[in-house]
Amino acid sequence: MSADNDQQAREQLIDLAAQFYDQFELGEIPHMSVPTRTKNNIEYSEEMDVWVYGDRESTRSANSVRGARKLLKAVYTIEFLAEQLEQDRSSTLRELYYLSESWDNKEAQFNDQDESNGLIEDLEIVSGVTREDFHMRPEESGATIMGPLHLREQTRRGEREIHCQKDVGEGGYQIPNNPDTIEFLSSDADFILAVETGGMRDRLVENGFDEEYNALIVHLKGQPARATRRIIKRLHDELELPVTVFADGDPWSYRIYGSVAYGSIKSAHLSEYLATPEAQYIGIQPADIVEYELPTDPLSDSDINALESELEDPRFQTDYWEEQIELQLEIGKKSEQQSLAARGLDFVTDTYLPERLDAMGVL
Amino acid sequence: MSADNDQQAREQLIDLAAQFYDQFELGEIPHMSVPTRTKNNIEYSEEMDVWVYGDRESTRSANSVRGARKLLKAVYTIEFLAEQLEQDRSSTLRELYYLSESWDNKEAQFNDQDESNGLIEDLEIVSGVTREDFHMRPEESGATIMGPLHLREQTRRGEREIHCQKDVGEGGYQIPNNPDTIEFLSSDADFILAVETGGMRDRLVENGFDEEYNALIVHLKGQPARATRRIIKRLHDELELPVTVFADGDPWSYRIYGSVAYGSIKSAHLSEYLATPEAQYIGIQPADIVEYELPTDPLSDSDINALESELEDPRFQTDYWEEQIELQLEIGKKSEQQSLAARGLDFVTDTYLPERLDAMGVL
Repeated sequence: MSADNDQQAREQLIDLAAQFYDQFELGEIPHMSVPTRTKNNIEYSEEMDVWVYGDRESTRSANSVRGARKLLKAVYTIEFLAEQLEQDRSSTLRELYYLSESWDNKEAQFNDQDESNGLIEDLEIVSGVTREDFHMRPEESGATIMGPLHLREQTRRGEREIHCQKDVGEGGYQIPNNPDTIEFLSSDADFILAVETGGMRDRLVENGFDEEYNALIVHLKGQPARATRRIIKRLHDELELPVTVFADGDPWSYRIYGSVAYGSIKSAHLSEYLATPEAQYIGIQPADIVEYELPTDPLSDSDINALESELEDPRFQTDYWEEQIELQLEIGKKSEQQSLAARGLDFVTDTYLPERLDAMGVL
Repeated sequence: MSADNDQQAREQLIDLAAQFYDQFELGEIPHMSVPTRTKNNIEYSEEMDVWVYGDRESTRSANSVRGARKLLKAVYTIEFLAEQLEQDRSSTLRELYYLSESWDNKEAQFNDQDESNGLIEDLEIVSGVTREDFHMRPEESGATIMGPLHLREQTRRGEREIHCQKDVGEGGYQIPNNPDTIEFLSSDADFILAVETGGMRDRLVENGFDEEYNALIVHLKGQPARATRRIIKRLHDELELPVTVFADGDPWSYRIYGSVAYGSIKSAHLSEYLATPEAQYIGIQPADIVEYELPTDPLSDSDINALESELEDPRFQTDYWEEQIELQLEIGKKSEQQSLAARGLDFVTDTYLPERLDAMGVL
């Protein structure tokens, strides 16, 4: 599987470079078109429920020194990536930036990491191949999984078959940087519970929630890494598991949910690969703060601003979110997921989650 | 092992509460003495090479309403912890804070989490039992290990035997919150390489450095969690492995090294449990920046301030550190560990680390 992907990614990169040859032959100035990646060329697709690019394009052309230098950097980068794929190696974005210092042509070296990061994004968009398929590793590591899932991971050292309850310690299975090296062998899971904080993840594991409810507990570790979003997407698509997101009851956590469900403006070209629009928000909901009389903190000014800007965000323009956000602005309070402990350490697993999952139709 | 520890921790807590009864019987006002935890009561022990408390003590006494309330909170917390240990359960610091809202006596509830965190630290110091032995889980999760180590972890779901190369994916073995549940079965490791960044950790694993050099690669993930420092300490003590720390070449990374080697002022009472004074710093050293002509960034004002305050810090008052820090102030530059990629992706594992390990006498 992996070798085929590599071959395909490599060909798509080389096709890009080959275009420049074709343009030379036709007597054209070499150029490359990329969708404009500014806020006003990004649209929310009602149909697909994710962010996508609009029709505007920017052209990088060799008709100026600046443009020519950009294309030169692109060609050097393509050469590096093609070689990396051929040798079955990988590297980080930061390594690519530093590596450019070793390139023989000084003009091809990057001035800063923003430049090399941006170029990799351009190449992702133009080639339709993700960074992971170029073997560019993210800097941020993915999180962990605990639950009834048996998988096979293709590592550089051979295959590993791992059951995410029986073959792991209490820390769970560490998601690799590229979860597309994983094949799902079998699963008794009924749904995915993606959890924001480590404290709550540990509570659920200690209380045996994954065993009792056949849940795959995926730790999000705050704003989730690409690897974490990707594996959630694949688990949903391939095993047809409902995805639920359990986070703090504040606007920053709603954004975490948003990035799992709808992707982000910054990575609109990856929505199809990373976003799970069917993901549902369990809580903490503003309605829960009222219903379960949870301990609260007052909303800060920046909380209020964030909630107000969510009301303007197309991702949150549903009856559900408008009602919840307006309620929260009205009560002026927020609650953390661990505040459920005020009702006892078992309240979350004995009462709160079963009630919510039932109301959502997941159980 | 674990059950004995629990029993002992429980007894030590109950002894604390029993003291109050003894004081009542003697007609004394109940009180509890704790080493003063301010900067001027913390000393660097030349002998033990770690931070320790001085002789000053503060007394919490019921001779004022405020003092009495503090002792009441301590007693409620002791009761909760003793019960938690009896039931073999655990909780986070944050859960303890929220849980106090369910206590029947309103006076015993915590006003904020600083208060409950501080009390747990007091109890750690007075009882000589660590938070982990009270079954208080840290919020921050530990990092990962990859290398020739076979271990047995005692989980709530039974024992798991895991080899940290053969039984794990590329992400490695996830260190549990309390590494004292681990027993080391056997190891072919020659030394520990603790690595600051995920990008470098992945590079070393991709290049097979752990296999070629029998290294245990421990990811620090920036400032290391307690669980990570604890397992490094135990690996050093029990398997007699040299510990080396590989971080960026800047003052913040020297502090990461310092927290592995010497502990921190904040947790001076835990130095014996968490600090490994024999840990050595591999680099990036300021001398490496010069010798290997690494790509650099200029020192910022806050970098310079941090370096100057390190020169005043007793942990860094050795000939080695004074020389390195003064060199860095002189050249006015810093380099990240991934900047070694400017010499090619294999330079770090083929050249840099072997040369440094040889110079340090580890290889």
